[in-house]
Amino acid sequence: MNRIEVCFSPGEYHLYEADFQLVVVLDVLRATSAICTAMEYGLKEIIPVASVEEARKLQSEGYLAAAERGGQIVEGFDMGNSPFSYMEPALKGKSVVLTTTNGTKAINMAKDKETVVIGSLNNLDALCHWLIRQRRDILVLGSGWKDKFNLEDTICAGAIADKCLKSGRFFADEDSTVAAKFIYRSARDNMFAFLKASSHRRRLRKLNLNEDVKYCLTPNNCSAIPVLENGSLVRMNQETVEAATL
Amino acid sequence: MNRIEVCFSPGEYHLYEADFQLVVVLDVLRATSAICTAMEYGLKEIIPVASVEEARKLQSEGYLAAAERGGQIVEGFDMGNSPFSYMEPALKGKSVVLTTTNGTKAINMAKDKETVVIGSLNNLDALCHWLIRQRRDILVLGSGWKDKFNLEDTICAGAIADKCLKSGRFFADEDSTVAAKFIYRSARDNMFAFLKASSHRRRLRKLNLNEDVKYCLTPNNCSAIPVLENGSLVRMNQETVEAATL
Repeated sequence: MNRIEVCFSPGEYHLYEADFQLVVVLDVLRATSAICTAMEYGLKEIIPVASVEEARKLQSEGYLAAAERGGQIVEGFDMGNSPFSYMEPALKGKSVVLTTTNGTKAINMAKDKETVVIGSLNNLDALCHWLIRQRRDILVLGSGWKDKFNLEDTICAGAIADKCLKSGRFFADEDSTVAAKFIYRSARDNMFAFLKASSHRRRLRKLNLNEDVKYCLTPNNCSAIPVLENGSLVRMNQETVEAATL
Repeated sequence: MNRIEVCFSPGEYHLYEADFQLVVVLDVLRATSAICTAMEYGLKEIIPVASVEEARKLQSEGYLAAAERGGQIVEGFDMGNSPFSYMEPALKGKSVVLTTTNGTKAINMAKDKETVVIGSLNNLDALCHWLIRQRRDILVLGSGWKDKFNLEDTICAGAIADKCLKSGRFFADEDSTVAAKFIYRSARDNMFAFLKASSHRRRLRKLNLNEDVKYCLTPNNCSAIPVLENGSLVRMNQETVEAATL
């Protein structure tokens, strides 16, 4: 049996991370949904950086760069973390530098682990199918909102934990995992309504980003599993995906 | 309108505390349940200290002292944090020094606030009745387990938030508060069963403390509201309780 646990936010990562070498990073609204979508639509790689300054520096060196803070595109950048931006055919095969309020911070926090993969509701089944076959302990890390707990990442973390636990190959010890699973089960039939009280959805609604929210809450419209390799997020190649057997 | 929010554990207190001068501290299993019970049964005061060393020092100076770590009474002490210990008639009017794994840490963390009160399921209605009449912003702080989220404190925090929000005099902004309220509503009809998966209940079951758990999960068997005054927890006097009017 392997262990799967949920850590709600980067602020608590130090309490959970010691036992894990496989970390799934989530930022459902919207960074990791955008990253999954980017891989699905054929981007070559996304280079996650923690600060706007780093993104600007790489932009000045000729990289395409995207930056979001507080839900909005940062001045001087053409893209933020709307998944729709990454469906652009012109981006196929390209590299994009990305910095976001929470998601890229969480990815960078986990970067010393053996394996960092990117999750979202968009690639839920594909990701869980792969995870269940790993025979490894798994930490699911929500990006939260400025180190605080958020509902949408918890729902997605709960979905991943629920599916992995149902396989019978995992156990969970932490109350955070029990709570995430429980919140997911209650929310799954109408996530959009369930999240109407969430602070980040209110934030995005003010910014007219309801279409983004609907997209991010749609399970399984992607099959790509983004994985961190030498500092870049790339699509896990099909051989690696299929090499995993029960 | 005033604001009420839930902070899951001491590790996140710095993210939430800035806006609040009234903090409710919870450690349902078992420190704050024991403290409410102690006040109900007529103890004069409980002096919460963070470390076993401090408790030993005060014990050597002649204080009655209680210490719990990892669910068990620490060697050299006669009591830990079982509520039943504090029902003892011989303790009436006495002072007791107390240190516990999580609860006294959380209490000490909040001690610079204008008002620190102690909550549990045991004094739920009495506490909420008073809180609703304060016209102040309220932070409900769970003691968690070694800085991690726990289910039992979250259920109790959700109960307090739910009752205060229902009064129509409060609003909540944080996702943690929404989640706590939601978990409480799902758990309230059978908390003992709901908590069967919780890590701390499993810990206490191993220690044969199921009777303690049942007691701690019984709402409204106490009406005392313990309040921190000059470093001691004392029962809020009846005049102060009644002075609060809508």
